[in-house]
Amino acid sequence: MSVSAELVKKLREISGAPMLECKKALEEAGGDQEKAFTILRKRGQALAAKKAGRVTSEGVVGSYIHAGGKMGVLIEVNCESDFVARNEEFQQLVHDLAMQVCATDPRFIRKDDVTEEVLQREKEILKEQATASGKPEAVLDRIVEGRLGKFYEEACLYEQHFIKDTTGAMTIGELIASKIAKFGENITVRRFARFKVGEGMPSA
Amino acid sequence: MSVSAELVKKLREISGAPMLECKKALEEAGGDQEKAFTILRKRGQALAAKKAGRVTSEGVVGSYIHAGGKMGVLIEVNCESDFVARNEEFQQLVHDLAMQVCATDPRFIRKDDVTEEVLQREKEILKEQATASGKPEAVLDRIVEGRLGKFYEEACLYEQHFIKDTTGAMTIGELIASKIAKFGENITVRRFARFKVGEGMPSA
Repeated sequence: MSVSAELVKKLREISGAPMLECKKALEEAGGDQEKAFTILRKRGQALAAKKAGRVTSEGVVGSYIHAGGKMGVLIEVNCESDFVARNEEFQQLVHDLAMQVCATDPRFIRKDDVTEEVLQREKEILKEQATASGKPEAVLDRIVEGRLGKFYEEACLYEQHFIKDTTGAMTIGELIASKIAKFGENITVRRFARFKVGEGMPSA
Repeated sequence: MSVSAELVKKLREISGAPMLECKKALEEAGGDQEKAFTILRKRGQALAAKKAGRVTSEGVVGSYIHAGGKMGVLIEVNCESDFVARNEEFQQLVHDLAMQVCATDPRFIRKDDVTEEVLQREKEILKEQATASGKPEAVLDRIVEGRLGKFYEEACLYEQHFIKDTTGAMTIGELIASKIAKFGENITVRRFARFKVGEGMPSA
């Protein structure tokens, strides 16, 4: 089937994928924009997975200061070439990631970064909560596993929903994957620091 | 003796101290600008020492990004009131401190923050160097103590020379002391993070 140029343009705006990719995805999805978007995201992630092993020693250190200096974030985002690091869209990505960290206060970058200790403590808490609410023993583990997904979504930057994405469907991992697909380079968040004035101070 | 208004004005520009303080210091120094500046700095530090115990739970998180994003610093500087935190001169101080950290890469904030382990290792290295250069055993300790001062000046933010001070005489500790004297509030650097793209990465 053929799809209208308008639909292609709209999907391009949402996904940031190249025109031709958008057209193909829309054709494959029979003109359904949402399905086409899902196809593009899967393609992006597949491409990102392919690039995942590649060394990223270039990049940008960016910052975001919130509320007149009451909170701030410093972040290092790496890519493969200085050429990409200088690209305005890459720098926008760095800015968006710094803002995301400022707003959501993740404790880890990726799922893999969650330490065994934190994971075990979280599991215990979730199990206790489920027991306390009267869930039967037999389903406890399944419930804990389910709620653990929620924990990852909150605690790990890559699992979080991208706050600037109005559809609410795109995670940070997917956002980064889409940029990897676009630039054809591996992109990784290496580290961040988040300071809030007075946070963690002993009260006077 | 009386001093010219022009001299007072000039000292005020250099020191940032109030007009009357500058006049008094100049009178005390017999019109010698350098001596007057030293008097003001000592006064500032005495005042700072008095305020040192006071709780600083307000402040500003500031950042400085260098060389188009190849290096960046995030810093938290605390004061006692939000009123001072909002002051333009305080925010300039935060900016200057972030820039200083970016340029000089201190490992610690204050002398007291140098861990015993780092100090012992440093002493050993200095002693070995002094021995290797043929210094007699009897003076080794004195030489090590002397060179340790240089180590503190490089490794500790408060001991460093303020890079924007063209006289080369003002340390960061003195800069902060002068602002404490000016604002009448305790001011402290609480923490900083400094990222450089690719720094500390295993080479490919």
